[in-house]
Amino acid sequence: MGLNTCGKLFGVGVGPGDPELLTLKAKRVLESVDCIAVPRTAEDRDSTALTIVSAVLVLDKPVLDLVFPMTFDKTALGEGWKTALSELLKTLRQGLDVAFVTLGDPTIYSTYMYLHRTIVEAGIEAEIVPGVTSFCASAARAGISLAENRETLAVVPSAYECAHLDSILDSFDNVVLMKVARHLETVRETLRRHDLEENTVLVSLCGQKGELVETRLEAVREKKLSYFTTLIVKKGRTL
Amino acid sequence: MGLNTCGKLFGVGVGPGDPELLTLKAKRVLESVDCIAVPRTAEDRDSTALTIVSAVLVLDKPVLDLVFPMTFDKTALGEGWKTALSELLKTLRQGLDVAFVTLGDPTIYSTYMYLHRTIVEAGIEAEIVPGVTSFCASAARAGISLAENRETLAVVPSAYECAHLDSILDSFDNVVLMKVARHLETVRETLRRHDLEENTVLVSLCGQKGELVETRLEAVREKKLSYFTTLIVKKGRTL
Repeated sequence: MGLNTCGKLFGVGVGPGDPELLTLKAKRVLESVDCIAVPRTAEDRDSTALTIVSAVLVLDKPVLDLVFPMTFDKTALGEGWKTALSELLKTLRQGLDVAFVTLGDPTIYSTYMYLHRTIVEAGIEAEIVPGVTSFCASAARAGISLAENRETLAVVPSAYECAHLDSILDSFDNVVLMKVARHLETVRETLRRHDLEENTVLVSLCGQKGELVETRLEAVREKKLSYFTTLIVKKGRTL
Repeated sequence: MGLNTCGKLFGVGVGPGDPELLTLKAKRVLESVDCIAVPRTAEDRDSTALTIVSAVLVLDKPVLDLVFPMTFDKTALGEGWKTALSELLKTLRQGLDVAFVTLGDPTIYSTYMYLHRTIVEAGIEAEIVPGVTSFCASAARAGISLAENRETLAVVPSAYECAHLDSILDSFDNVVLMKVARHLETVRETLRRHDLEENTVLVSLCGQKGELVETRLEAVREKKLSYFTTLIVKKGRTL
């Protein structure tokens, strides 16, 4: 089957939560496609990305639910992707354009990129539509910069067994720690060891219901934290 | 003068170049304010941020030109800021709302944050409206991710005398090198030393006229490069 008969895939970043942080392009693409593909972590779970999209446009087109188990287990992930990919391919090969919605930006810790590579390798057109990242929006809500002048910025994912975290905190001016919710106590210990607790702000559910911006980490109860919680460490500034 | 009689300052990220990468919120704020403040590096230079804004909305309101010399010289910068700040304060104290437009996102290497802090300290309301960063848009154009799963991401500014660059390239999975234009040969040498030239993509003028996406660094002529040139290094992948 040639390129011309297939639809096109768009990986659309919808921003971190506030529907107004969608870009004009994201809105146009979502309005123009035939179908919206939505990643879910479980079949009965709400999709935050879809909630954002629904706030901005009328969903008068089919929604393709793709279930990605939230796990690092390769077999479970492999099964999830295989199913998701085959549904996506089927839709694209019907000649339908599909927008896969993803929180924040598709190039930053998004499941989308796996699909993107596979779809491109299958000879089908795919385009990434960038979005506002959660860490930029979080810094904006906290009223601070992520980097100025000659400062460096490190972005570290939720894997806090990360052997380099100590050296990153030593050598970088600003550090973003993503998805800290389940690791807050461990991370606080590390920050304390580096005397950086006073230089840290926690932002949870940025732009969403229940948003929290807190510089006093001791006031935050780990158990109540959303998965969407980020810490920003600024070496040069008490927060 | 109290808070109520002053206007409000918005630091608005307009994205890296493509006017469609403006957010819905940025557009609404730009439409609603009384005045748009535009940073310029010299009085006769065009403002890229204003060009982006003009493409999306009718500029039927006053534009306040603020000149910031493009230099690390503190005296020259100090004079520029002093003048810019006093013009901005005058406008806000007239009760006018002002949107200061900035390329990309205001929290990432933007002049805006200095103004933000000073305005907030003066007891005037200020809000940061996040935008799409140039590095996210560049990765999107190159069709690659900036970070996946447990990968780390480092963002390094144009100061390539940076003593840590070698250790950053050693320890990070993905590295963004901002504003490389004048330093391309030095940076290429460093990349070659780390055997990373084949893992690097150069993106220049992302989403603007004259855009360039190039994985063969040897094909790029340094002299012709725009100031808005970024390198993305992906340790785990040949590009």
